[in-house]
Amino acid sequence: MEKSAEGKHPVKAFGWAARDRSGLLSPFKFSRRATGDEDVRFKVLYCGICHTDLHRIKNEWGGSNYPLLPGHEIVGVVTEVGSKVQKFKVEDRVGVGCLVGACHSCDNCANDLENYCTKKILTYNATYIDGTTTYGGYSDHMVANEHYVVRIPDNLPLDAVAPLLCAGITTYSPLRYFELDKPGIHVGVVGLGGLGHVGVKFAKAFGAKVTVISTSPNKKKEAIEHLGADSFLVSRDPDQMQAAMGTLDGILDTVSAVHPLLPLFGLLKSHGKLIMLGAPDKPLELPVFPLLMGRKLVAGSAIGGLKETQEMIDFAAKHNITADIEVISMDYVNTAMERLEKVDVKYRFVIDVANTLKAA
Amino acid sequence: MEKSAEGKHPVKAFGWAARDRSGLLSPFKFSRRATGDEDVRFKVLYCGICHTDLHRIKNEWGGSNYPLLPGHEIVGVVTEVGSKVQKFKVEDRVGVGCLVGACHSCDNCANDLENYCTKKILTYNATYIDGTTTYGGYSDHMVANEHYVVRIPDNLPLDAVAPLLCAGITTYSPLRYFELDKPGIHVGVVGLGGLGHVGVKFAKAFGAKVTVISTSPNKKKEAIEHLGADSFLVSRDPDQMQAAMGTLDGILDTVSAVHPLLPLFGLLKSHGKLIMLGAPDKPLELPVFPLLMGRKLVAGSAIGGLKETQEMIDFAAKHNITADIEVISMDYVNTAMERLEKVDVKYRFVIDVANTLKAA
Repeated sequence: MEKSAEGKHPVKAFGWAARDRSGLLSPFKFSRRATGDEDVRFKVLYCGICHTDLHRIKNEWGGSNYPLLPGHEIVGVVTEVGSKVQKFKVEDRVGVGCLVGACHSCDNCANDLENYCTKKILTYNATYIDGTTTYGGYSDHMVANEHYVVRIPDNLPLDAVAPLLCAGITTYSPLRYFELDKPGIHVGVVGLGGLGHVGVKFAKAFGAKVTVISTSPNKKKEAIEHLGADSFLVSRDPDQMQAAMGTLDGILDTVSAVHPLLPLFGLLKSHGKLIMLGAPDKPLELPVFPLLMGRKLVAGSAIGGLKETQEMIDFAAKHNITADIEVISMDYVNTAMERLEKVDVKYRFVIDVANTLKAA
Repeated sequence: MEKSAEGKHPVKAFGWAARDRSGLLSPFKFSRRATGDEDVRFKVLYCGICHTDLHRIKNEWGGSNYPLLPGHEIVGVVTEVGSKVQKFKVEDRVGVGCLVGACHSCDNCANDLENYCTKKILTYNATYIDGTTTYGGYSDHMVANEHYVVRIPDNLPLDAVAPLLCAGITTYSPLRYFELDKPGIHVGVVGLGGLGHVGVKFAKAFGAKVTVISTSPNKKKEAIEHLGADSFLVSRDPDQMQAAMGTLDGILDTVSAVHPLLPLFGLLKSHGKLIMLGAPDKPLELPVFPLLMGRKLVAGSAIGGLKETQEMIDFAAKHNITADIEVISMDYVNTAMERLEKVDVKYRFVIDVANTLKAA
């Protein structure tokens, strides 16, 4: 397997990959394609660790193919551009998120919603249009069609901006689409992890009032004093939840574990919107009567299109929004995964790839 | 109980009420208030039988108080108006639907959404602002504040228009609010009963393409040839359902029984909307991943406000929309309830109150 990965393309590449469902990551030699006419090649400086990476390396969602080289919060500096590339030049600061391809002929693609294209190509563990496997950002360099490359404004630090390419757009996009991006709107954020803490920052930047809802009372101080949330609800405290009934216009629910929706419907005003961003592996219970009585809705949202991802990054630059991160070295990644599983990180691990990925 | 009901108000009234959870309806003497300054009093000509009436007389949702006099699809002719009534005069054709009161000070009331006011007063089995019990339209006459009275245009037959006051607005309102009211939109209607058959008519009148989804293949001919649906899907036929994947912009789901949502999510396009109109008594299973992957939503909707109810009736008049009904006599009502329970009606029973309710 590894030899074929190394020999498929002309450009040698190196990273860390999982070899089986243990999820243990280790050094991996592979190859990437030559820079095509519309391609941007860049040296990877930083790559965020998304919870999806953990699911994928352990095949917890099924469909993982090994060797699997994760990472879809990738930033770096351009080293080469194809002859037809228009938006980028060598030394530009750029990023690649969850997507590297789509069909470009469906309605979603026509509406800059490549993320909902049924033929979208994920940044890793997918098959590219040339038939080869895609490999992610836990690697020395990256190459992608310029359509899937985002410009990183100069004022954003490259390490802390990396997680915005997944966690950022995942929270920004639904705030926009479901019209929770207006001053005076009251937004709830359930779960204060990688997604949630960025969701709080975007909602605040839009001028919303933000309430964090969490099972952990000890996150209150952090949520309010550090992240700028206006209030905090302990979801296991019935009195607090009761007192907040009917106060929220919308909720970003970032929790991937199975959990009850009824208390969240209760927090919503009439016509309120519960937006699911996590994907529990089992169906949740949907009580219908509370939806009817207040014309409430529950919806899902998944990352965002490329146009909106650039818009999100530019908005983040304007409002000085980045993720709160813990920078780690490449050889710490397996420990980081163990800690991530225990939710022991504030709030995102980012691998310092350029300085710590040791050549093969 | 009956004596007090008869003595509470100055105006004698007569109808059929249920006395206990058997749900058996029988003649019932009671009283209604004198015509207040803002009240409209009218002789009841017809009253539709909604499935809610069946639930309520048998206390299937809890909270039923006996004697319980149902009926919230009430039409008739005005016999008296209060001194401050502006919109109606004697002999006008009018109707009352599910509501006779609300707080008129909350956001929902300010936005003509009395139906979502948490202090709304239902037409029967509720407590009116004077502290007395509300009684519905299975009765000789009705009195209501003019705000809750709808004008019935002359071209609509009074018997077949009655069900629009509940089934009509319940389907019209979500088609409007969720933007499924545009030519070219493809709408699914799940369940072809009282709600569903009217939903098909409204969706067609808005210019939508309509697909009926039903467990009963024998409803196909009726749905297409009689109601004007464009296509028909047997929900139990996996091949038909598979072939229709990703084709619908929205779905009105009128089914009150517990049923799977996953196949309906599958029928929706990206960004499609599943609108629940029935209220299953147990939670449904909500698979979240399919919501995320297409930014789909599931929402609830319940009747509509008074302004929109009048708009719906005027739209129905313009497009000649009424319900398909079976007119029955008052003394047939218990048999009708048995048949309704077996879904043996096309599509709504309407009681010919004026001609068949025999005086006490």
